[in-house]
Amino acid sequence: MSQHLLTVDSLARENVDHLLRVAARMEPIANRRQVTRVLEGAVLGNLFFEASTRTRVSFNAAFCRLGGSVCDTTGFTFSSMAKGESLYDTSRVMSGYCDAIVMRHPDQGSVAEFAAATNVPVINGGDGPGEHPSQALLDLYTIDKEFQRLNKSLSGAHILLTGDLKYGRTVHSLIKLLSLYGPLRITLVSPPGLEMPSALIDLVASRGHRIEQRSSLACDFSDLDVVYATRIQKERFTDEMNESFQGLSGDFMINRDFLDQRCSPSTIVMHPLPRDSRPGANDLDVNLNGDPRLAIFRQTDNGIPMRMAIFATLLKVDALIDEDQRPVRWFVPSQTGTLDR
Amino acid sequence: MSQHLLTVDSLARENVDHLLRVAARMEPIANRRQVTRVLEGAVLGNLFFEASTRTRVSFNAAFCRLGGSVCDTTGFTFSSMAKGESLYDTSRVMSGYCDAIVMRHPDQGSVAEFAAATNVPVINGGDGPGEHPSQALLDLYTIDKEFQRLNKSLSGAHILLTGDLKYGRTVHSLIKLLSLYGPLRITLVSPPGLEMPSALIDLVASRGHRIEQRSSLACDFSDLDVVYATRIQKERFTDEMNESFQGLSGDFMINRDFLDQRCSPSTIVMHPLPRDSRPGANDLDVNLNGDPRLAIFRQTDNGIPMRMAIFATLLKVDALIDEDQRPVRWFVPSQTGTLDR
Amino acid sequence: MSQHLLTVDSLARENVDHLLRVAARMEPIANRRQVTRVLEGAVLGNLFFEASTRTRVSFNAAFCRLGGSVCDTTGFTFSSMAKGESLYDTSRVMSGYCDAIVMRHPDQGSVAEFAAATNVPVINGGDGPGEHPSQALLDLYTIDKEFQRLNKSLSGAHILLTGDLKYGRTVHSLIKLLSLYGPLRITLVSPPGLEMPSALIDLVASRGHRIEQRSSLACDFSDLDVVYATRIQKERFTDEMNESFQGLSGDFMINRDFLDQRCSPSTIVMHPLPRDSRPGANDLDVNLNGDPRLAIFRQTDNGIPMRMAIFATLLKVDALIDEDQRPVRWFVPSQTGTLDR
Repeated sequence: MSQHLLTVDSLARENVDHLLRVAARMEPIANRRQVTRVLEGAVLGNLFFEASTRTRVSFNAAFCRLGGSVCDTTGFTFSSMAKGESLYDTSRVMSGYCDAIVMRHPDQGSVAEFAAATNVPVINGGDGPGEHPSQALLDLYTIDKEFQRLNKSLSGAHILLTGDLKYGRTVHSLIKLLSLYGPLRITLVSPPGLEMPSALIDLVASRGHRIEQRSSLACDFSDLDVVYATRIQKERFTDEMNESFQGLSGDFMINRDFLDQRCSPSTIVMHPLPRDSRPGANDLDVNLNGDPRLAIFRQTDNGIPMRMAIFATLLKVDALIDEDQRPVRWFVPSQTGTLDR
Repeated sequence: MSQHLLTVDSLARENVDHLLRVAARMEPIANRRQVTRVLEGAVLGNLFFEASTRTRVSFNAAFCRLGGSVCDTTGFTFSSMAKGESLYDTSRVMSGYCDAIVMRHPDQGSVAEFAAATNVPVINGGDGPGEHPSQALLDLYTIDKEFQRLNKSLSGAHILLTGDLKYGRTVHSLIKLLSLYGPLRITLVSPPGLEMPSALIDLVASRGHRIEQRSSLACDFSDLDVVYATRIQKERFTDEMNESFQGLSGDFMINRDFLDQRCSPSTIVMHPLPRDSRPGANDLDVNLNGDPRLAIFRQTDNGIPMRMAIFATLLKVDALIDEDQRPVRWFVPSQTGTLDR
Repeated sequence: MSQHLLTVDSLARENVDHLLRVAARMEPIANRRQVTRVLEGAVLGNLFFEASTRTRVSFNAAFCRLGGSVCDTTGFTFSSMAKGESLYDTSRVMSGYCDAIVMRHPDQGSVAEFAAATNVPVINGGDGPGEHPSQALLDLYTIDKEFQRLNKSLSGAHILLTGDLKYGRTVHSLIKLLSLYGPLRITLVSPPGLEMPSALIDLVASRGHRIEQRSSLACDFSDLDVVYATRIQKERFTDEMNESFQGLSGDFMINRDFLDQRCSPSTIVMHPLPRDSRPGANDLDVNLNGDPRLAIFRQTDNGIPMRMAIFATLLKVDALIDEDQRPVRWFVPSQTGTLDR
């Protein structure tokens, strides 16, 4: 595996397989049955030049669970970059302070530019419309884990990606990773104007997968294994799209009716979160809360073992984890969420 | 004790007694004579969706003193909640990352709603006009500790609560806790329009305490044990109140003259802080700085052992503290503040 | 050494010598070859009431490398100081939570006022136009280390300070520290209106150094050992200065041509950073990136061992460092930056 994790494009099948295996070995620690201190003394620079509580805390907690310490930075105005400092300088300076760096930045390519200046491992935590590889990895890990639980296999699975497939960077990265496995049947459903870029469709098809585009969810999905829903981000819309889209968005909403009427009882629902739970938001329906098919919280939980696996692999301590463990001494609830099933 | 600490209403006398005892056992660690690592590997989510340096750092430091790591979040705009995420989702996601969660939020009831979604222990760090139970507990712990030092007893003590008794949430929670002890004599002095809610007065009276309301501090307080002053927060005032209140506020100010002329030498002064030290603020007078009767910094110091006790109790490591200790190796001043007496 | 580190004025030659020696002993830990846990259990209050990612993270990482935990505060609006809390109260409250405090604040003298209230060690992380002593110490440490590498001596060295010598607080503190060593030859080059204050020039001269002021870089610097460049901060300018300064700033820029044509191959270039790398900024030229004479990143790297030395000395654990070490187990690149020479 390369020195940094900037894009899923750099990951070969064997790299992904390795990360999935290491993540599985992290489960006892991520689930708070065991404690490890393998990174005790190491410092993570967790640089979020764009807002993201969830992803920031997930990386932070994952590094802490390995025994390390974290220096957080949030916002852009607080940064010397506002005074004209180049990404090169910021990168080289931070690299003298930290053993690993996670960076989120609004500009596509900025994290790669940052990484070019340093030999300290850099993880892309999202660069605007660009990449967010750890999300795709935890999504794939979730599918793999859910399939093991359900005695299913990635080979021959049917996966539905729906919502905003044009701007949703998580689905772009995920579909690339999925294309390393399979062969799969992938169905894409999005409103007009928000279709998956054709280059990605071609890539997936060229790797031997069956990929279909549809414009409606009103089909038979009785053999569906996974629905991966994404939010239709209205802030991306032009005025024109806004007009033509009036009243449409509800048609692309995943809810209990859709699952009950069109899918199988073993279809699981994923979403990169956050979802908009306000009335009329037409995002993934809250009426699925507490439904065992809703895998979205198992999915976010999986961010911890996968990010631990990424850190451990890049910092080359993955082989030390099994020996460096002791039992947790504090209270851990047997079930994390009150509605978990 | 229940799984979360959301309100003092859920605390029975035996729960409070337990927390006071555990806090006392935390003193050597809180006072930096001893180090414990009992929570090594644990992660606290310290979620402050409303500004509060003091309370945030106090919880953070208390968790660190137990050996744990902390993920801080400050502000609201940085949160996915700004994108329409429900408290349910935020809670369930954070619960997959953290072993305990402290939450401050501007909306009353929000912390309870957050806690309803998770089995991970949640501590209410203040929900707007609602509750802030750890403050009330450290206040009670302070009174108990000061009384031990002065060979006084909570039984028969005379406590004055003054300032804004209507909106000051700390006095509401404190008076509930105090009412579990005693019997006490409680005097309430506030400007017209800022009186303690009558439901609280009735509750305290029904528990056998002697409770009196006055509109002025110009009385004999020679048997007073504690004066608990609170800031009159002008931002809560209507225009009408502002007018009628002109010039009044100084009459409700606790200062050296009040203590010297109306109280006994053993009367201690408490305040939830921050106090407004700007000229004309009419908050607790700075002319008491360095006076041994001023207990406000002993009070904030007590936030550490009490919050350690809360964490240790909710995470069920309170029984492990005594064994898991070693001496501090770094320099600790014998007296924290230069004016401490 | 005194209890706090507020200004370089309080440092005698023997204090500085001690810090340089301790910093050198921190190198294996700062360079991530060794881990120490000597401050395990200690808590740093890292209070930044003014923006500074670099300095904040440097202090944070240095404290973590000693084994301690850090509570960060950034920004001013989030502070109870916005509600009228005095520096005295803030200081005394934070001192009950923390074992050491770093403070940056926009107002000159504020950190000293803060320190006056507490016996917990306080380090001035910059008080507006005032002092930033840890920067001067790491600058001196860098010169000392570079000279050792180059078999040079501080005695008889020639040091050029250039740029904004009037408002640049780092050069003020550095020249005071340098004046404890030597005897030196110091050349000052700045645009008209931005000269070094004469009191400082007199102080340095009175200590037996040869100090010269010039208004241009167009001289022979063939015996120069160090050029210390600083940014000309246009935000400090009056309208008048702005006008007369049009086109001038490039004349005070340090770049490859200046080094190649006027200096010796062993002249090193320092800068307190951040530098403005935008075109037309006329700050230290990016065309020196990758040039071994450019010492600016070795300089920022040195912030870690020097700040570790400051913490260890103030907290009196400097004598424990050599025994409390074990090897790092994670991957550390042999060269931090990709262009490091």
